[in-house]
Amino acid sequence: MTTTERRLPVIEMFGPTLQGEGRVIGLKTMFVRLAGCDYACSWCDTKYAWAPDHLAKSEPLAPAAIVARLEAAAGGCRRVTLSGGNPALHDLGALVAQLKAHGWHTHMETQGSLVPPWLGDLDSATFSPKPPSSGMATDWTALAQGLARCREPDLKVVVFDDADYAYALEVHGRFPQVPLTLQLGNRVGEDTTATLLERLDALADRALSDPRLGDVRVLPQLHVLLWGNRRGV
Amino acid sequence: MTTTERRLPVIEMFGPTLQGEGRVIGLKTMFVRLAGCDYACSWCDTKYAWAPDHLAKSEPLAPAAIVARLEAAAGGCRRVTLSGGNPALHDLGALVAQLKAHGWHTHMETQGSLVPPWLGDLDSATFSPKPPSSGMATDWTALAQGLARCREPDLKVVVFDDADYAYALEVHGRFPQVPLTLQLGNRVGEDTTATLLERLDALADRALSDPRLGDVRVLPQLHVLLWGNRRGV
Repeated sequence: MTTTERRLPVIEMFGPTLQGEGRVIGLKTMFVRLAGCDYACSWCDTKYAWAPDHLAKSEPLAPAAIVARLEAAAGGCRRVTLSGGNPALHDLGALVAQLKAHGWHTHMETQGSLVPPWLGDLDSATFSPKPPSSGMATDWTALAQGLARCREPDLKVVVFDDADYAYALEVHGRFPQVPLTLQLGNRVGEDTTATLLERLDALADRALSDPRLGDVRVLPQLHVLLWGNRRGV
Repeated sequence: MTTTERRLPVIEMFGPTLQGEGRVIGLKTMFVRLAGCDYACSWCDTKYAWAPDHLAKSEPLAPAAIVARLEAAAGGCRRVTLSGGNPALHDLGALVAQLKAHGWHTHMETQGSLVPPWLGDLDSATFSPKPPSSGMATDWTALAQGLARCREPDLKVVVFDDADYAYALEVHGRFPQVPLTLQLGNRVGEDTTATLLERLDALADRALSDPRLGDVRVLPQLHVLLWGNRRGV
């Protein structure tokens, strides 16, 4: 079996939909969600991608089969987001190469804990290191290496509380040249549109009056405002 | 009087606040709103910038005075949005030069009906040609020239109805290489958060299933979701 035939565990593929987060917010994109994660964030909103039995629930697909399915559903869309879990767990080199050969713009979402050799082949990636409320610890060396190797990186920090906000400041202090988004934490099953917008207002106020965050974005998750916490949108 | 001393009619300056629209959505920025417009869009949400007596209501400020006020209020923010009305009506060459000398990232919002000589000095600009519902006609030649002259242009089309949507398709067809945002039209005094999100959902559905819009963003006005139609935010 050659590299290009190696199968990847796909949890779901969907789209075209809107990218809901970070610097690429609002963009029309296809999604490929891969199984497995090296993290287990307390508030993860896609636990089905890595919780027990995720491999049994995933479909093993060769890169060519993934590209074929994207092409069939794309309807003119040429942007694909590789997500997870942590998609950097897998050898996506062949998939990324085939996507590029078919004219796709490839974007990845990762926490930045791993630095795969194909990272520099992507068009862009959003690095979302996890703040204290997640219960995870950050590997700053891996994050720095990933950001340096990526062609067009941006950073996104989810903020639920004061400790998360302080963490976002640390991220910005360490990587001041990388575009940073503060993303309001979404309390699944608890937040409504009204409470999300109220809390976003408070987060915006804080960031806007904080001179340590000179250049920053503050954003909600667009898909949650539009569609709640439904899966596959 | 030298060029640098020429005064500009400032309607309002505010910030830091969040950029509410287009590709730069969510970014922390200062705003400078200049008086006057060559258009009179039916649904304009900043009529106070150009409606009768706007010049009487504005404050004539020299570029150096504008920069000084921005510096005093910036609190670490180095991004400024020049807006209106149509800021391209004025000779902003000296202002842009002084802003750049002070390390500001300069962004303009314009409908693209005018092509001032200093356009290429800006870091970026959002061109928002006005759709049929505005009651205005588009000067395609000026728009093409402006986009070509701008270092980092993006396009934004407000969509209220079917004719506006068709217009957005025409804009994308004419300038397929320029990033395009469809922005949901905001019915001031009528829309609520709920109706805005409902209508945004419908617009997203339409754009997502339309192969003529392969690469596009669909976005609401973030500031309206957060703060309603208040002025100076």
